[in-house]
Amino acid sequence: MAAADASSLPPSAITCRAAVAWGPGQPLVMEEVEVAPPGPMEIRVKVVSTSVCRSDVTAWQSKAQLDLFPRVFGHEASGVVESVGEGVTEFQVGDHVLTVFIGECKSCKHCVSGKSNMCQKLGLERKGVMHSDQKTRFSVKGKPVYHYCAVSSFSEYTVVHSGCAVKVGLTVPMDRVCLLSCGVSSVWNVANVSKGSSVAIFGLGTVGLSVAQGAKLRGASKIIGVDTNPEKQEKGKSFGVTDFINPDELSEPVQQVIKRITDGGVDYSFECVGDSGVVSTALQSCSDGWGVTVTLGLPKGKLEVSTHYAFLLSGRTLKGSMFGGWKPKSDLPSLVDKYAAKEIQVDGLVTHDIPFNEINKALELMLENKCLRCVIHMPR
Amino acid sequence: MAAADASSLPPSAITCRAAVAWGPGQPLVMEEVEVAPPGPMEIRVKVVSTSVCRSDVTAWQSKAQLDLFPRVFGHEASGVVESVGEGVTEFQVGDHVLTVFIGECKSCKHCVSGKSNMCQKLGLERKGVMHSDQKTRFSVKGKPVYHYCAVSSFSEYTVVHSGCAVKVGLTVPMDRVCLLSCGVSSVWNVANVSKGSSVAIFGLGTVGLSVAQGAKLRGASKIIGVDTNPEKQEKGKSFGVTDFINPDELSEPVQQVIKRITDGGVDYSFECVGDSGVVSTALQSCSDGWGVTVTLGLPKGKLEVSTHYAFLLSGRTLKGSMFGGWKPKSDLPSLVDKYAAKEIQVDGLVTHDIPFNEINKALELMLENKCLRCVIHMPR
Repeated sequence: MAAADASSLPPSAITCRAAVAWGPGQPLVMEEVEVAPPGPMEIRVKVVSTSVCRSDVTAWQSKAQLDLFPRVFGHEASGVVESVGEGVTEFQVGDHVLTVFIGECKSCKHCVSGKSNMCQKLGLERKGVMHSDQKTRFSVKGKPVYHYCAVSSFSEYTVVHSGCAVKVGLTVPMDRVCLLSCGVSSVWNVANVSKGSSVAIFGLGTVGLSVAQGAKLRGASKIIGVDTNPEKQEKGKSFGVTDFINPDELSEPVQQVIKRITDGGVDYSFECVGDSGVVSTALQSCSDGWGVTVTLGLPKGKLEVSTHYAFLLSGRTLKGSMFGGWKPKSDLPSLVDKYAAKEIQVDGLVTHDIPFNEINKALELMLENKCLRCVIHMPR
Repeated sequence: MAAADASSLPPSAITCRAAVAWGPGQPLVMEEVEVAPPGPMEIRVKVVSTSVCRSDVTAWQSKAQLDLFPRVFGHEASGVVESVGEGVTEFQVGDHVLTVFIGECKSCKHCVSGKSNMCQKLGLERKGVMHSDQKTRFSVKGKPVYHYCAVSSFSEYTVVHSGCAVKVGLTVPMDRVCLLSCGVSSVWNVANVSKGSSVAIFGLGTVGLSVAQGAKLRGASKIIGVDTNPEKQEKGKSFGVTDFINPDELSEPVQQVIKRITDGGVDYSFECVGDSGVVSTALQSCSDGWGVTVTLGLPKGKLEVSTHYAFLLSGRTLKGSMFGGWKPKSDLPSLVDKYAAKEIQVDGLVTHDIPFNEINKALELMLENKCLRCVIHMPR
């Protein structure tokens, strides 16, 4: 691994180690990669910690984009700014940052709307390249290595657009706050859960538990957690779940039970599994007239959401969201502050701390549903 | 037809004419029916005008509830209170009323919620009987004749629960205001269309045109009407449509055109056809991040609504509504006032005035898509 240049000189390419996926589902291979200098409005970040999200694993396994291999996955990360590209004034070398997979340009129709985080310039990048020039910043022996979500944090160094990073305080624990860059944040904004309301959460993974925590903070009086893993009962409780239901232990549909214990259905339900059938169950579990179902789970199988007309016509709402509707730059710092002030817990979501060279273990744990979040620690 | 008793005596059964459906899709037959006196909290109404709604026709044709024939359809009606049952204090003999197919008991969880019109006591009645005792008030030669939506206005007299009627002024034209009891009202509340926003409406029938009118009153700046019937272009204009699109005349998907002319999609789209595929098109026609699609059309074919996950995860909302989320008693009078003050037009939605004994003509016109609303005039 080469050291970074002095910040007064124009940055040059860095050679470092990255965990490269050469094909779908193939174990990541530690490779010496070359990381280009940051382009205009970009920054190069020395990654400190990166957690593994279900969507990294889904994309890694998918055969839908074979031409985007070799590729560096990872998008939930914290790090230190190593160098800055032309025009960057927001960041300085040495700043601590979180990377974010949806950027915020602050000038497009969506960024200025006050009601959308679907930045038109730095939105979800699906082509494995940087937003600005549609090229990669990684290469192995001259061969381009593709990005993931324009973040690619399974590497000692990475390049991100300055609109895809958020500055955090120097005292915030980097190996935990990285979770805020995706999974935990997904849920704070979108449903506007009201005080005294009832909530059902389908799937108590990182996202589901974070929904529970958010609902509790907003004063929900009943928080029903639904998961087929009995171990989630205790875990759920520590994040605010008041009633746990294991559908495998029921002799009737889970929505019937929920309707009974809530006198007609919950006010809000959250689908955090990414399963089309569960979306419809979640919709049926909420009340006629005002029930709101939010789908947050990235689909793992069938890509169609379907449900019976009647569940909509009777006054229910179905909505979806990426990153909980948060604008990363505008909204994420307040969440980091809440964590720093111990108003929200993140640490309990980390089940494994794993050194970078054992990163494949984290992917296996995720595939086997044996973890919540694994945090990958980069070498210092 | 027997005359009503004097209002001071307890009401007795009335014999009058009703248009009875003996089987699905079979032409209605004028029969002498006996109409029982109103039960406790019920009123008997001398129907003055009743319009024919698409849902009457759909239910009449459906073979799903064969055991509910013979049956009297009709639910959009105006009339005069002929007698009142025990405990009714809200209405007096001679009052002019609109019937409503979703009642309002004003005491259940939903009625007091301030956010739902799904009354738990007087909600949509699907079993062909009265809410209170699960019995019919009609009979032919002693054989029960079933109700529709607990209204059954294709009869000279009918019995409705007092929670399913709304008083209107004596000077309001009964043969037009009957439309407010369903089709026109469906759209005023649910989406909260904001000033300056853009709207797309799929299907310019009575409901769609009423959406256009409502959107115009709320200050929408662009109101796109989508219909395969070219005659709807002129009609749409008179109800506020600013841009007309005929999908049959396009060489690309209609959602692409809408996204182009609105820089990314409309703020609100309304599905007023009752077609599952159109729901997904409507969802795709609205903007990432904040677009709201409201489905108002009662399904005519497939009962499943389905769409791709991505259209939800990118921040869109899909919701449905019956009667536009309006509480009939609380909200309908203001709409009647607006009509009386000529702030909204209803008359333009009436394409045919038809005497009661030719009611089958109205069903045919609806089946052939040759009308908006047909108003049936009862004999005086």
